[in-house]
Amino acid sequence: MSSLYALGIGIGTKNSKGEWLEVLYPAPRLNPSAALSDAILAVCPDGAVSEPSAEQLQLLATALPEIDAELAALCLRLADASAPVAIVALAADQPPGDVPTAYLKLQLLSHRLVKPHQTDLSGVFGTLKNLAWTNQGAIDLDELVERQLQARLAGKTLLVDCVDKFPKMVDYVVPSGVRIADTARVRLGAYVGEGTTVMHEGFINFNAGAQGPNMVEGRISAGVFVGAGSDIGGGASTMGTLSGGGNIIISLGEQCLLGANAGVGIPLGDRCTVEAGLYITAGTQVQLLDENRRPVERVKARDLAGGSDLLFRRNSNNGAVECLTNKTAVQLNEALHASN
Amino acid sequence: MSSLYALGIGIGTKNSKGEWLEVLYPAPRLNPSAALSDAILAVCPDGAVSEPSAEQLQLLATALPEIDAELAALCLRLADASAPVAIVALAADQPPGDVPTAYLKLQLLSHRLVKPHQTDLSGVFGTLKNLAWTNQGAIDLDELVERQLQARLAGKTLLVDCVDKFPKMVDYVVPSGVRIADTARVRLGAYVGEGTTVMHEGFINFNAGAQGPNMVEGRISAGVFVGAGSDIGGGASTMGTLSGGGNIIISLGEQCLLGANAGVGIPLGDRCTVEAGLYITAGTQVQLLDENRRPVERVKARDLAGGSDLLFRRNSNNGAVECLTNKTAVQLNEALHASN
Amino acid sequence: MSSLYALGIGIGTKNSKGEWLEVLYPAPRLNPSAALSDAILAVCPDGAVSEPSAEQLQLLATALPEIDAELAALCLRLADASAPVAIVALAADQPPGDVPTAYLKLQLLSHRLVKPHQTDLSGVFGTLKNLAWTNQGAIDLDELVERQLQARLAGKTLLVDCVDKFPKMVDYVVPSGVRIADTARVRLGAYVGEGTTVMHEGFINFNAGAQGPNMVEGRISAGVFVGAGSDIGGGASTMGTLSGGGNIIISLGEQCLLGANAGVGIPLGDRCTVEAGLYITAGTQVQLLDENRRPVERVKARDLAGGSDLLFRRNSNNGAVECLTNKTAVQLNEALHASN
Repeated sequence: MSSLYALGIGIGTKNSKGEWLEVLYPAPRLNPSAALSDAILAVCPDGAVSEPSAEQLQLLATALPEIDAELAALCLRLADASAPVAIVALAADQPPGDVPTAYLKLQLLSHRLVKPHQTDLSGVFGTLKNLAWTNQGAIDLDELVERQLQARLAGKTLLVDCVDKFPKMVDYVVPSGVRIADTARVRLGAYVGEGTTVMHEGFINFNAGAQGPNMVEGRISAGVFVGAGSDIGGGASTMGTLSGGGNIIISLGEQCLLGANAGVGIPLGDRCTVEAGLYITAGTQVQLLDENRRPVERVKARDLAGGSDLLFRRNSNNGAVECLTNKTAVQLNEALHASN
Repeated sequence: MSSLYALGIGIGTKNSKGEWLEVLYPAPRLNPSAALSDAILAVCPDGAVSEPSAEQLQLLATALPEIDAELAALCLRLADASAPVAIVALAADQPPGDVPTAYLKLQLLSHRLVKPHQTDLSGVFGTLKNLAWTNQGAIDLDELVERQLQARLAGKTLLVDCVDKFPKMVDYVVPSGVRIADTARVRLGAYVGEGTTVMHEGFINFNAGAQGPNMVEGRISAGVFVGAGSDIGGGASTMGTLSGGGNIIISLGEQCLLGANAGVGIPLGDRCTVEAGLYITAGTQVQLLDENRRPVERVKARDLAGGSDLLFRRNSNNGAVECLTNKTAVQLNEALHASN
Repeated sequence: MSSLYALGIGIGTKNSKGEWLEVLYPAPRLNPSAALSDAILAVCPDGAVSEPSAEQLQLLATALPEIDAELAALCLRLADASAPVAIVALAADQPPGDVPTAYLKLQLLSHRLVKPHQTDLSGVFGTLKNLAWTNQGAIDLDELVERQLQARLAGKTLLVDCVDKFPKMVDYVVPSGVRIADTARVRLGAYVGEGTTVMHEGFINFNAGAQGPNMVEGRISAGVFVGAGSDIGGGASTMGTLSGGGNIIISLGEQCLLGANAGVGIPLGDRCTVEAGLYITAGTQVQLLDENRRPVERVKARDLAGGSDLLFRRNSNNGAVECLTNKTAVQLNEALHASN
């Protein structure tokens, strides 16, 4: 008896050299049962990634119905596929070293089976290929010029929607209870929680997301996570771990409001507000005000990192960045100072 | 003799349960003539939404040529359609309680037959279904996973461009004299006036719009309307009635300039400017300056709502938000104060 | 013997009146050799734009292999095309007066054969037609309503991705070594240098670009050029020559950082930084600080135009816009003043 970390049975695309470009897993599994794991490994014993024959898929379709009816039905249909089929059976949570594994891990996130930072994505940039994502599917960039000419000669239209290592999420999964107005702006590997609306100006990178329900009209950068009930205003910015945010992982707690065109370079706790148009970086000097709006002290924004019940604004009379707090928040701040 | 409020003859999409998903009306009519109204009601007497048979459409094609040649020709062609056909004949301007009616009302707006707030859209969010908008048309989200798998098995590519209640406008109508660089950013139900350019970073929500001519490089939120000759700079924000703007309906008059990355949470009159990067919310304290740049008084931005000839800037020496006016504007402000 | 300025052999689209809408040149040539120029002119002697017959294309396919094997192969394939074929042979760098020439010049830029401002694009807005860019190719707007209805009647889906004079670049060429996450945001005529990533919020207009390598998460407006190693943060703005920037052509030198939601209305030299959220216009008053952060003088931002080693920030205690420099930068500033 063996229990896998994760399992994916999928259908994908290869380039003309036979290299994997991408794989769709309609029903990925995290921590599949021992029974399911054993059934898979009995048919595909040869390591993490296998390319099952039609016979193997039919064997699985016969073996799985009482263990996992959805996967059994999937195997039956994939047995007839002309496109390449992959089974990925991961024994443990390791960095993804090949394309089918990377796509499985990204789909674990977007199927909400794991949250951002909960599966190891080390080196995923190196593993994924930069591709042309087109209305004729994923195309290797080395083959694009020829495909473009072929389409023109055949009177067809080849449209390139994206040139990137990451495709858009919704061509792999649309999780329940979400709206995403411009799907080009949510990468595969995003976690989009139930009840989340991503408006046209919203954006969610891979390994980042929103717990739901959330209104996302700004940018949730790589690594950033936003708690339930928090809203990211139009054009608002969160500093990602890939660019500018350095080592600090930005997150927002619950019931926060990041105003339109605002930005944060520090993590925030619950019920925080940053007024429209104000960008708080870690080094911003902030005049702390108590619940009666009296000055308490001047601190750097990074000293307030993780605090709750904070309201950041720029005083429109004198230009000073201020943080209104309630008593709880000021005490928290003292605690934070104490641990500096 | 009866006169309808509005009339649409269209072709649309249903899900596998036979429920309407969306309807395209190539030539919607507002306040159709009594003759046209009577001709329609003679054939489709059964309430607001009917699904005419091929025979009924041919009857209309015969009856209408002298009343409305364009609709007569449309009926003739729709008689052969395999996709479902709808006729919506609205006696009055009521909240849209079904999908075909909601789509007619949104198309009244985008065909410029009504302006934002001129047709009753109450409850439209509840009426519209959240759908996957794909290169295979509108798809019920309950049917998307199966359609995705079918496409893969058939060697085809199903692309999901949008997951939303509102499709993009231009798949229903491209009004005359406009450019829209990234059409995903203009929702059906937007009013895009003659001579308007919506650049890649521009956005127009439903029940919102621009009179034209306008250059729109920022976001025109739900409910917002922009007068002739006003420009919305790149990334600029207008607070919508759905999020943050509260009860105030934001509008900009004529010849205004909202600078790049700027924002407004109050309505503006004519010839107003907000400098690049400055966000004016209703609560922003503003130092009012007269035409000689001498301080007049300190007010909240909401006290300047609707004023003309105002220039908002943040003093780059002392950080104060200032509003430069001319005499007319100062008098207006006094009038506004008087009515507080 | 004659040497052309530029040469394109392409395949394109016409409207139902036989007018050119657009042309794809898979392998445009700048300053082609005299041998190549002569071979082309021998077959197509009739001015800049010709529409070769299949026989002429086969003649070229026979004549060119030893001069330009790639173009010879292209001619052979185009001889069988059902879509219209164009050969554009430009004797000199003149304003583009017709559609095939305009498309050749835009593709010279996007193929990196010329840099922004290096080919004459005068009048290109008047030359190009505003078109619907769809999954059925470019469509004349006068024909769109009929095409939309035809598609619906045939059970097909016609999607309009763009209504603009400029299509997206990547449907014509994906230059080597780039990623463009949302391709709708890079216009044909952009110059995207090797090693450049354009994220979802990035944008590059025509006759503008990035030397590469660059990270572009903000907007590179018409006419703007960004040097190697400079990053444009998320939502950051550069003022274009078409809107707001007036006569000043904005550029950024090497190793600059424009922070998220920041903006510039002046050109910058090398190693400059604008902090997140700060918009510097030409008229912004700036407190100049020396390398010890002591005040030097107060200047307008335009006086710092083109300077290197400048760091712009808004003091978060007193709201003043400041510019930190090192000695070199201060000396440069004195030189700039001297030439005022």
